[in-house]
Amino acid sequence: MKETVTDAVEPGPRIAFQGELGAFSQIATYQLAGDNAIPVPLPTFHQVFEAVANGTCAAAAIPIENTLHGSIHENYDHLLKFDLGIRAETFVRIVHNLIAPPGVRFADITRVFSHPVALAQCLHFFEENPGIRKTIHYDTAGSVKMIMEEGLKDAGAIASAAAAPIYGAEILKKSIEDDRQNFTRFFLLRPNSAPPETPPDRPVKYKTTIVFTVKNVPGALFRCLSALALRDIDMNKIESRPLRGKPWEYLFYLDFIGSPDEAPARNALGHLREMTDMLRVLGTYPAAG
Amino acid sequence: MKETVTDAVEPGPRIAFQGELGAFSQIATYQLAGDNAIPVPLPTFHQVFEAVANGTCAAAAIPIENTLHGSIHENYDHLLKFDLGIRAETFVRIVHNLIAPPGVRFADITRVFSHPVALAQCLHFFEENPGIRKTIHYDTAGSVKMIMEEGLKDAGAIASAAAAPIYGAEILKKSIEDDRQNFTRFFLLRPNSAPPETPPDRPVKYKTTIVFTVKNVPGALFRCLSALALRDIDMNKIESRPLRGKPWEYLFYLDFIGSPDEAPARNALGHLREMTDMLRVLGTYPAAG
Repeated sequence: MKETVTDAVEPGPRIAFQGELGAFSQIATYQLAGDNAIPVPLPTFHQVFEAVANGTCAAAAIPIENTLHGSIHENYDHLLKFDLGIRAETFVRIVHNLIAPPGVRFADITRVFSHPVALAQCLHFFEENPGIRKTIHYDTAGSVKMIMEEGLKDAGAIASAAAAPIYGAEILKKSIEDDRQNFTRFFLLRPNSAPPETPPDRPVKYKTTIVFTVKNVPGALFRCLSALALRDIDMNKIESRPLRGKPWEYLFYLDFIGSPDEAPARNALGHLREMTDMLRVLGTYPAAG
Repeated sequence: MKETVTDAVEPGPRIAFQGELGAFSQIATYQLAGDNAIPVPLPTFHQVFEAVANGTCAAAAIPIENTLHGSIHENYDHLLKFDLGIRAETFVRIVHNLIAPPGVRFADITRVFSHPVALAQCLHFFEENPGIRKTIHYDTAGSVKMIMEEGLKDAGAIASAAAAPIYGAEILKKSIEDDRQNFTRFFLLRPNSAPPETPPDRPVKYKTTIVFTVKNVPGALFRCLSALALRDIDMNKIESRPLRGKPWEYLFYLDFIGSPDEAPARNALGHLREMTDMLRVLGTYPAAG
């Protein structure tokens, strides 16, 4: 695995992520775990969670929401099933680039491969270039890998700038995404048994993520939110997911500013425990951005 | 289009749905618009909304949430963009069946095609039959159509029971889904300019679906929910979606029991208008189930 770090740097922790080398998640691994982190690409999110649960990797970098696409609901579901905790968050700005094999000119390109979400985020580019066909591939960086391996002379791929040098390809057009307000939020996950993170050397705001189910009575969610609001605790996000086995009932995932180390959040969590059927703290971590 | 109804019945309204004939959405069209409805299959949800907006179809039947998979977020986004209203809701129990061309026996089958969500809902079947490979196709009913058109002798498809006779295929195994608590909720949508629905001939509970954005201040969502809770209005569901152009701010979609024709819901909506930046009533309709 040493090829991904320079010889001068001591290899860091192995960090699992979903996708191919050069994926936006790989950029997140460095932001979350340091420049000497060793990114370990895996095909599915489930395998990423398993790699941390079984100790193959020290931690995972997973996307949880994107400002255009919304939440990555599959990862909310995995957070509930695995005994991993959220230790850090980071934001990655999603910049899509048109990438092609060396020697392929823009005029040669008749089709562009990428993940469907990336293709859908570059619609202006395809409108301005009606001779280029959108072609669905399973992964952004994987589409760069594929056009290089296949030696395609008429094809490009849409991926992060980091993907081009990894596969020996070239960037033909930078930043072809429609909307520059395109950010993905990532979590760093570790086993709950792992030692706590080193505290930051400057004062920070903490964020806490919880998941809970409410009693099936009118006003139940409102009362749960009151546990935060009556203590002036700022809620950043709420996400609902279906509760298995109870049709039309929901799990709620909630982010708020605060840490159970401080009285207001600790008391709010105690109050929430009175009003919920199930409550789990998924993690407390320094708020990014 | 008359081939989909018997000659004895007057053809009903054209109802757009996403998928191929035999899709679960087609079952929903009959539940929502009557047995003489003419289901009009279209490839994408966007085309379904457009067909109603431009008058090609009288109405649309769209899935909005499934008890195992969660919300169909794309359709929440379309509800905001199009000037269509929710006129009815219905629940369809999702029963997955193994379907094959006539003459193909269970022992002949080495691969089964279906939509990835349907394949993921029949994992026990694949665990019990390790010689059968899951194969991804774009649509459940479309996979029945494909195995028939290709004349495959080693393949089956997973789809609704309704799909088998439509394509001349046969059901080999009924109800192979893992979890019987598998329901999808569908909406009937019409242009907001269309005349109101005929009221039901018995007293019913009404449900109202709204979408709103909150002011970006602490406790904003809590105060919005108070407009309902303080009037004892029962909230059934809340769903958040990213707000375009404002990273990490959200739209909220909310269902509650009640109709703006009655004072509590009317007053709650007035109260909500004071506290929201944007509020739209997407529809009021008889609550199903």
